[in-house]
Amino acid sequence: MLKIGFLGPEGTFTQRAAQIYTANKSAELVGLPSIRETLLAVQQGELDLAVIPFENSLEGSVNVGLDILAWEVDLLIIDELILPISQTLMITPGARWKDITEVYTHPQSAGQCRLFLERQLPQAKLYLTNSNSAGAKLAKETGIIAGAIGPEHAAEIFGLEVVLRDIQDKNSNFTRFVVVGKKLDDATSLQNRTSIVFSTEHKPGSLACILDIFSLWDINMSKIESRPSRGKLGRYIFFIDIEGHMLDQDVRDALTMVKRKTTFYKFLGSYPRVDME
Amino acid sequence: MLKIGFLGPEGTFTQRAAQIYTANKSAELVGLPSIRETLLAVQQGELDLAVIPFENSLEGSVNVGLDILAWEVDLLIIDELILPISQTLMITPGARWKDITEVYTHPQSAGQCRLFLERQLPQAKLYLTNSNSAGAKLAKETGIIAGAIGPEHAAEIFGLEVVLRDIQDKNSNFTRFVVVGKKLDDATSLQNRTSIVFSTEHKPGSLACILDIFSLWDINMSKIESRPSRGKLGRYIFFIDIEGHMLDQDVRDALTMVKRKTTFYKFLGSYPRVDME
Repeated sequence: MLKIGFLGPEGTFTQRAAQIYTANKSAELVGLPSIRETLLAVQQGELDLAVIPFENSLEGSVNVGLDILAWEVDLLIIDELILPISQTLMITPGARWKDITEVYTHPQSAGQCRLFLERQLPQAKLYLTNSNSAGAKLAKETGIIAGAIGPEHAAEIFGLEVVLRDIQDKNSNFTRFVVVGKKLDDATSLQNRTSIVFSTEHKPGSLACILDIFSLWDINMSKIESRPSRGKLGRYIFFIDIEGHMLDQDVRDALTMVKRKTTFYKFLGSYPRVDME
Repeated sequence: MLKIGFLGPEGTFTQRAAQIYTANKSAELVGLPSIRETLLAVQQGELDLAVIPFENSLEGSVNVGLDILAWEVDLLIIDELILPISQTLMITPGARWKDITEVYTHPQSAGQCRLFLERQLPQAKLYLTNSNSAGAKLAKETGIIAGAIGPEHAAEIFGLEVVLRDIQDKNSNFTRFVVVGKKLDDATSLQNRTSIVFSTEHKPGSLACILDIFSLWDINMSKIESRPSRGKLGRYIFFIDIEGHMLDQDVRDALTMVKRKTTFYKFLGSYPRVDME
């Protein structure tokens, strides 16, 4: 039986993603308290796979996961899921939500609800937590009138009351989760995606040169994200997702060329693609 | 006398940046509690200029400032400053820092000290604040053994004790601050930078085509950052900094072409450039 970790504990959006991912699989789900611990447990062989949040349509990439995949572990993305996300405000039962003095949530959820927090709860102190379930737990335990933001099922788990749904800054809100493991899945799908991370020489046109490689091979790029290279300001590493599988001749040829033209290159996996439209 | 806002209140890294920026100017400095309020006060004419943190060498861009410049205001960057950043742990005087149960800080500082927090203070709850000075104030007032992370001068202002310096994940740590106003500064420097934000058609090669324009005109790109376009997953807007001034013939010609090849385009300013090396 597969042992699959997720950013937990129970009561996170990632738990839902992990449940959907394992619906037809024989798997034991294990909630870990941070993205770092979840990924390191796979790296150290304590888990077979991990499900982590990767990118949200309002707040963008989950930086910590990107940084750890680039610098700290040797793991591969083997699958992805895209889920609609409804951020829910849940509070101490019986209280009025306008009386909340503290709000507990994960930074990604806080970022997705920025306008709501500034306009509707300007007096509430915002409490950053490692996960939304940790936030719901703290809100329940704090003893004062507190709120938590996260998935609706967290309210049930931690004994809070749901008072508002869809409080994120835009109604349409999606998060892409990835499944990460130690080796590539042999089964390929008809529609695939490949993720890489690299850095280029610091000179004019060096990033354009890499993107031109994908144009040349008619490969569609579905994501580009820059992160600081952790050295000088203005030096970046780039996370790019392209359509296609490492086993496709064109993708392999293009990536061979990318590797040649970059100063740092790491393959992050080829996996079945979920399209949004 | 210029009225210049900064991400405050007193005791932030941005306050230091604003003090350095106004060292030879006749200016009144006003600390505001969030980046949004600081930028909106300039937009509404209550302030002449604003100083905000823009990008850090460890943690990357300050997303909220980018998003507001792209979507919510019509302001221009007129200057920049790059400062070395030493993150300091300050605590309730007389306490032992290993006994801290709560840590208060701005999300950028938390991101720069991720490893320190996970390894040295795994039991401490992390409290996200709008600024480091708000964090220092809360740490002082909370009544329990609390710590704050931020600039050393915040300890003095709020009566905390500095116990550790340079706790960020890498010793070398820089933040780029920008000065934002309503109109371009007429004075041009020898070395300039120009910032733009745009989005492209969703088809292969469309971003490569934009970067090729800069290559064609031999214009160096010093920053690229993608942010979600706030609609579908996988649609981005791109923030790009190039070397040169809007009044340079080549820059003007290249940007005319960029404007033609993009679906959304906004000029964010030309200003004197600070180089890191």
